[in-house]
Amino acid sequence: MLVLNGPNLNLLGTREPHLYGAETLEQIVEQVRQHATSLQMEIEHLQSNHEGALIDAVHQAQGRVHGMILNAGALTHTSYALRDAIAAVGIPTIEVHLTNIYARETFRHHSVIAPVCIGQISGFGGYGYLLALQALHHLLAKQTSSDSSQGSAR
Amino acid sequence: MLVLNGPNLNLLGTREPHLYGAETLEQIVEQVRQHATSLQMEIEHLQSNHEGALIDAVHQAQGRVHGMILNAGALTHTSYALRDAIAAVGIPTIEVHLTNIYARETFRHHSVIAPVCIGQISGFGGYGYLLALQALHHLLAKQTSSDSSQGSAR
Amino acid sequence: MLVLNGPNLNLLGTREPHLYGAETLEQIVEQVRQHATSLQMEIEHLQSNHEGALIDAVHQAQGRVHGMILNAGALTHTSYALRDAIAAVGIPTIEVHLTNIYARETFRHHSVIAPVCIGQISGFGGYGYLLALQALHHLLAKQTSSDSSQGSAR
Amino acid sequence: MLVLNGPNLNLLGTREPHLYGAETLEQIVEQVRQHATSLQMEIEHLQSNHEGALIDAVHQAQGRVHGMILNAGALTHTSYALRDAIAAVGIPTIEVHLTNIYARETFRHHSVIAPVCIGQISGFGGYGYLLALQALHHLLAKQTSSDSSQGSAR
Amino acid sequence: MLVLNGPNLNLLGTREPHLYGAETLEQIVEQVRQHATSLQMEIEHLQSNHEGALIDAVHQAQGRVHGMILNAGALTHTSYALRDAIAAVGIPTIEVHLTNIYARETFRHHSVIAPVCIGQISGFGGYGYLLALQALHHLLAKQTSSDSSQGSAR
Amino acid sequence: MLVLNGPNLNLLGTREPHLYGAETLEQIVEQVRQHATSLQMEIEHLQSNHEGALIDAVHQAQGRVHGMILNAGALTHTSYALRDAIAAVGIPTIEVHLTNIYARETFRHHSVIAPVCIGQISGFGGYGYLLALQALHHLLAKQTSSDSSQGSAR
Amino acid sequence: MLVLNGPNLNLLGTREPHLYGAETLEQIVEQVRQHATSLQMEIEHLQSNHEGALIDAVHQAQGRVHGMILNAGALTHTSYALRDAIAAVGIPTIEVHLTNIYARETFRHHSVIAPVCIGQISGFGGYGYLLALQALHHLLAKQTSSDSSQGSAR
Amino acid sequence: MLVLNGPNLNLLGTREPHLYGAETLEQIVEQVRQHATSLQMEIEHLQSNHEGALIDAVHQAQGRVHGMILNAGALTHTSYALRDAIAAVGIPTIEVHLTNIYARETFRHHSVIAPVCIGQISGFGGYGYLLALQALHHLLAKQTSSDSSQGSAR
Amino acid sequence: MLVLNGPNLNLLGTREPHLYGAETLEQIVEQVRQHATSLQMEIEHLQSNHEGALIDAVHQAQGRVHGMILNAGALTHTSYALRDAIAAVGIPTIEVHLTNIYARETFRHHSVIAPVCIGQISGFGGYGYLLALQALHHLLAKQTSSDSSQGSAR
Amino acid sequence: MLVLNGPNLNLLGTREPHLYGAETLEQIVEQVRQHATSLQMEIEHLQSNHEGALIDAVHQAQGRVHGMILNAGALTHTSYALRDAIAAVGIPTIEVHLTNIYARETFRHHSVIAPVCIGQISGFGGYGYLLALQALHHLLAKQTSSDSSQGSAR
Amino acid sequence: MLVLNGPNLNLLGTREPHLYGAETLEQIVEQVRQHATSLQMEIEHLQSNHEGALIDAVHQAQGRVHGMILNAGALTHTSYALRDAIAAVGIPTIEVHLTNIYARETFRHHSVIAPVCIGQISGFGGYGYLLALQALHHLLAKQTSSDSSQGSAR
Amino acid sequence: MLVLNGPNLNLLGTREPHLYGAETLEQIVEQVRQHATSLQMEIEHLQSNHEGALIDAVHQAQGRVHGMILNAGALTHTSYALRDAIAAVGIPTIEVHLTNIYARETFRHHSVIAPVCIGQISGFGGYGYLLALQALHHLLAKQTSSDSSQGSAR
Repeated sequence: MLVLNGPNLNLLGTREPHLYGAETLEQIVEQVRQHATSLQMEIEHLQSNHEGALIDAVHQAQGRVHGMILNAGALTHTSYALRDAIAAVGIPTIEVHLTNIYARETFRHHSVIAPVCIGQISGFGGYGYLLALQALHHLLAKQTSSDSSQGSAR
Repeated sequence: MLVLNGPNLNLLGTREPHLYGAETLEQIVEQVRQHATSLQMEIEHLQSNHEGALIDAVHQAQGRVHGMILNAGALTHTSYALRDAIAAVGIPTIEVHLTNIYARETFRHHSVIAPVCIGQISGFGGYGYLLALQALHHLLAKQTSSDSSQGSAR
Repeated sequence: MLVLNGPNLNLLGTREPHLYGAETLEQIVEQVRQHATSLQMEIEHLQSNHEGALIDAVHQAQGRVHGMILNAGALTHTSYALRDAIAAVGIPTIEVHLTNIYARETFRHHSVIAPVCIGQISGFGGYGYLLALQALHHLLAKQTSSDSSQGSAR
Repeated sequence: MLVLNGPNLNLLGTREPHLYGAETLEQIVEQVRQHATSLQMEIEHLQSNHEGALIDAVHQAQGRVHGMILNAGALTHTSYALRDAIAAVGIPTIEVHLTNIYARETFRHHSVIAPVCIGQISGFGGYGYLLALQALHHLLAKQTSSDSSQGSAR
Repeated sequence: MLVLNGPNLNLLGTREPHLYGAETLEQIVEQVRQHATSLQMEIEHLQSNHEGALIDAVHQAQGRVHGMILNAGALTHTSYALRDAIAAVGIPTIEVHLTNIYARETFRHHSVIAPVCIGQISGFGGYGYLLALQALHHLLAKQTSSDSSQGSAR
Repeated sequence: MLVLNGPNLNLLGTREPHLYGAETLEQIVEQVRQHATSLQMEIEHLQSNHEGALIDAVHQAQGRVHGMILNAGALTHTSYALRDAIAAVGIPTIEVHLTNIYARETFRHHSVIAPVCIGQISGFGGYGYLLALQALHHLLAKQTSSDSSQGSAR
Repeated sequence: MLVLNGPNLNLLGTREPHLYGAETLEQIVEQVRQHATSLQMEIEHLQSNHEGALIDAVHQAQGRVHGMILNAGALTHTSYALRDAIAAVGIPTIEVHLTNIYARETFRHHSVIAPVCIGQISGFGGYGYLLALQALHHLLAKQTSSDSSQGSAR
Repeated sequence: MLVLNGPNLNLLGTREPHLYGAETLEQIVEQVRQHATSLQMEIEHLQSNHEGALIDAVHQAQGRVHGMILNAGALTHTSYALRDAIAAVGIPTIEVHLTNIYARETFRHHSVIAPVCIGQISGFGGYGYLLALQALHHLLAKQTSSDSSQGSAR
Repeated sequence: MLVLNGPNLNLLGTREPHLYGAETLEQIVEQVRQHATSLQMEIEHLQSNHEGALIDAVHQAQGRVHGMILNAGALTHTSYALRDAIAAVGIPTIEVHLTNIYARETFRHHSVIAPVCIGQISGFGGYGYLLALQALHHLLAKQTSSDSSQGSAR
Repeated sequence: MLVLNGPNLNLLGTREPHLYGAETLEQIVEQVRQHATSLQMEIEHLQSNHEGALIDAVHQAQGRVHGMILNAGALTHTSYALRDAIAAVGIPTIEVHLTNIYARETFRHHSVIAPVCIGQISGFGGYGYLLALQALHHLLAKQTSSDSSQGSAR
Repeated sequence: MLVLNGPNLNLLGTREPHLYGAETLEQIVEQVRQHATSLQMEIEHLQSNHEGALIDAVHQAQGRVHGMILNAGALTHTSYALRDAIAAVGIPTIEVHLTNIYARETFRHHSVIAPVCIGQISGFGGYGYLLALQALHHLLAKQTSSDSSQGSAR
Repeated sequence: MLVLNGPNLNLLGTREPHLYGAETLEQIVEQVRQHATSLQMEIEHLQSNHEGALIDAVHQAQGRVHGMILNAGALTHTSYALRDAIAAVGIPTIEVHLTNIYARETFRHHSVIAPVCIGQISGFGGYGYLLALQALHHLLAKQTSSDSSQGSAR
């Protein structure tokens, strides 16, 4: 499973902690990794401030990875290219936001990526990644047991 | 803990199953109840097609309930009155949607309730309620251990 | 067959008669009932000022009623919950408006309910209910004689 | 009475039958004519793909015709000139659409002609013309019996 | 005279007191009642979180009540049904808001009810009800002394 | 206390009396003066058609005047400069409109001045100035008795 | 010189006389012709309800006619094709409207033709054509006496 | 008759002559005066860069002047106060613009003053004032000969 | 194959040559004809300034013509009727524009016809028709060799 | 050189010092004057709350002054008349704002004056006037040394 | 000549083949190369998911390359930086899209790059690159034979 | 101090010199360096066409650099990611634009970066960087002498 983090998320812990909390990205990823292990899943992680690097990573996941957890940072609101990449590879993807983006500036209310994702989890800080992992685990389990029942989650 | 479901959610299982799945609301609530028990929490549940009844329930929860999980159905997009009720009682609330509302009709993209909630979970069918329960449990645990660290989740 | 009337329609005959005419709702419903009898149909009627009561009635019609005639009054312009109810039960529904809503205030030009109805009849006063009844009768007759030809009415 | 059909309606029966049905325009007009005869009314019919020809026909109806049934096709959404023609001659006009235009592309939701018509009937295929005929017959009968009660239909 | 209070106003005194003040609704209504008595008027009061109940109350006031003071709460911004009820019964109505709604969130700046009211008083807390009572008293006195001078207040 | 009247209000009594009534501005101001005297307040009055003169007057009121009643006429909808003046001097100000501006042309629905005022009173003709005077008297009394309770009026 | 009149202007005198006056188009054109004669100009006139016929006439005027007076009726608001025709032939054109289009429905406020005309005269009934004739005469006289001074009229 | 010129029109002749021509305002006004004399009318003229001064002038014209010719300059697009002044005094007013404002920047396309004027003449440079004078003379002559025929000019 | 040219394209060569070039429509059509011959295709050509004539031509092409090249001129931006005609006959159609419409006035950026065409070629002057011919030839060749591979071109 | 300050800037030092700082306008102007002297330039200064007075001052600067520094206060957002004055006199003008207007209310983000100025300096408090002076000095020096190189600064 | 392909185009052949076809990018580029050879042109090709890399390539083409064919993928809709790069180097550029972008989601209808290109070809799959090559060849040939005739292509 | 230049600024001197001037970026940076030296400040400089590289540079400046001068080129209008980076590191930043962006295309009027900067300087070509340097020097000097007075510059 691939965890992708977009621009500025490397600053977590120091960046506006009243908004984003005191946990660093490393701490969050470590928790996701431990939880994944307990669910017998493996995770890869990439953080980049370069849209192109994130797109490259999505492409390279094709055929190798069963799910993605994506926090695209501010690219959430503008990157149709990232959206197209996710739609193109067809890997089930869950969108995560640390903060409740609907309680912030208007430009943060609109995600151009949301329509090609399975679902969205926002507002729970680093814990949102763990919820996303669990949701992905649940989805993949359901898919394995039955193809036909999967449609109902959308 | 209060689980509130708005208009038409009583039809789950029969209503457009290609969209909403085959699980009934009773089945979902039962799963939430079992999971709550395992977390040593209790849940109350109300489903109503009446905006006023939902608002009354929010009011009556004040001082009695530590968290709410709310799927306001189509009221999500218009009910400022429900929004004001949540803001007024000050109980931490998580918004849940069965489907990914950002992949559907435009009018479903905007939630007037989101700005007064802690966070939002959408697109995971009935499993979203369990994720919300877990998130609420996590938040309340954090609050108990430390007031100051709670701010970081917003 | 179910005839549903929304907020303020109980005032017909006294409410702004230059706009809505002098007929009372009882008189209109009585005419619909007589016409239904002549077509060997039965009608039930509900008027309510409560959105929730209208939604409850739509739910209870499921599996029992073959068609609905709906004048949602001012809820026409805002009630996504009523729209979802109609879509959920899948009963063929005809939207009726006493006045030509496109010749009145701008906010009355947009019906959030129209996209889930079979068709719309507006501007003919109480007589519009009779036209709707007749249209429903025609549709149901066509459906009975042939499933395949029904598609052509949409 | 004048039945006016605008651009592309001559293709009915062959044009996108999943949308518009298999009846030809000739069949529909023939049914209207028979129903008119049974109501002791006469109809004239014109279909044209030329906006100007439709306007000319509206002008020539003045003083000769008691009512019009108009399906302006795609001119519905743009022809202020046709709208002005109807307002100018002052003949009661009913707008008909084969399909439920409110369930189709956004540009079809707005009729520039509606505000100068008596009413609108949409979504009932060719049967909508018969309903319009009947509505016109009802209106003209009411007008004959009493001028004052006519206002109530608006 | 009828005093109507919409959703969440029952929470006054406890709800966000930095915004709405520490007075309870009971205290405000009691002051209105005393002031009414001093002006030889009687008041009835209803608070409801149900739009339908408010509409029912407006209907039942017809022919019995000479004026209404209405704080529709968040329904102010969406309830065309309540607006239609006021227009239908024709009772002079004054809109009251505790806070200056024009200094708050954008969605609170627009009242769909205002166009059918006599006037609006906002920003004076519970004291606004007393001002409204006085304005209603002044209007009714003017109406009694002269029908023709009443027009000048609009 | 300062009463400020903007453009065209000097024409009151002759200007469109069906809209604005037959009272002259002098008559209204005289009534305000008498009522002020009865409340042991003094009033100054200025009417000007010059935005700059109104701003000058607001500046000169600073440190000398305890409250302002402002009917900015058509400047209400455009004068950010007048708005800034009121915000700059920090004198409690009440906005008055003779007519219900929300029942008139769309451009009159938006006040750029409202967000910096205490409250707004509209639709009561000249009597609105008396209500404003009373509201100001009430506010100043409350402020004198307690600073802390003043916040509750906003 | 060419006088062009668009859709519905043939109905002048009978069409909504409270809006458009009692003069017929023939009377107006006759006055223009007489005035033209007195200025030693000749006029041709065409009225058509067909956009295509108006465009054809503009094309045929090229190289033959020194100026055009155009009342495009409702095509004013939509006909980019007519606009392109005027721009293509490069004949100085004056836009005339019988009524003050800025005091009517919103859709009449916007002329797509205005940007390619010399100027616009609206609100003076049939007399507007005479003013346009005079303006055209003035412009052509100026052009003859001096090419360089013509620019100043734009 | 009053000729009113707004901000910056005093610069005519020197200001952007490629746009506004080489004539000075004095030359234009002198021509208007001469033409007025030939029509046995008298004119007064005021140019001011102060909105308030223009409003004062409109007020002072009441009861003394039979018509106004107004070029409000850039106030055309923003001054609701000037609009209200014209509506209040009820003097027939013609709006003049030197240039074709519909062929310039978008903000110049909208006149807030137009809806309260008789008509508009734009694009003919200084000659537009002479056309306006003539139009006003025509209107007043018509009014004198018959009150009833005046309505037709609107 | 049918080449259709809309309003004002008959003026090519004389019309604004800095925009549209010096080639006449006849020259362009002759080149298309020669190129068609070399590809063993036949072409018919129609230019009309009448929307109705263009729609008639599209209808008559049905069942006779395998592809259309359409430059609808300014009707591109408004003619939903022409769009419906193309959709109704189901003939593969390529939209051509002489100029790059996206580098011109805003109103030229939007084509209501584009959604029902195969593709669009704009900005290459008369040469664009040759490119369109070639594209159509390519498409029809592909269709002949295989139905299934055709979907990939959309 | 002319320094122009619009409405409310006379209050600097006392007006909302958390926004605008503690320096008075006199102190700022004195610093500009000293800096000008050091650059061998002379300055005139005008502050006015009257739009008309500012326009008059711009007119009187023509032919006398080589540059202007303008802080139009809230007129920045609405005064097309001031904009036209600057464009008309053709004096190089620099727009200054004390605060970063792009970090404040939305209505402050748009300057109608900016398009006719050389450039804009915002967010540096009173020091912005000194930067503007220096920029103007630099521009005028460049202009003197070479006319052709001046274009490059735009 | 430079062929530039933006984000996700490397996935062609595997990415949503029902939309984009089964050809790989390599196959398309190879066809372009062969066709170029037959026209005695050389091509370079770059595909990148990084906006910056595309801009760098455009810069490096300056003075070396005579034309560009650009499919910017989803950057088409947002990259003003790429647009500025094309405008800066002044190399004739043709925009290509595999699909008819005007028949897809609304956000794909707007190209920020189009206004600085020669023309646009969309909807012909990989064949569109060949058409673009041919158009570029035609343009460059025309430019060589005559500078003056080139203007006509715009 | 860090000077950051975004996409296409490396082309300065050759890119559209009528817009951007003949100075190269190297010349501008060299002047900034010299001026910095005279103020005893040091500068680093980075130009990149890659958004990600600019964000990386902002991150690396944290804790090392006291101020930034940023010309983000076309990223100014879209890069919320760059905006977030600046907000996250909390280094005082001044936005510079060579041209007056408010006198150019509409899309250049809006800076998404402005709200997180201290201020903006636009329209002075390369000299704007020197003004920005000076402003930054002034701000840092003020900060050193007093923390409390710094707030007043915003």
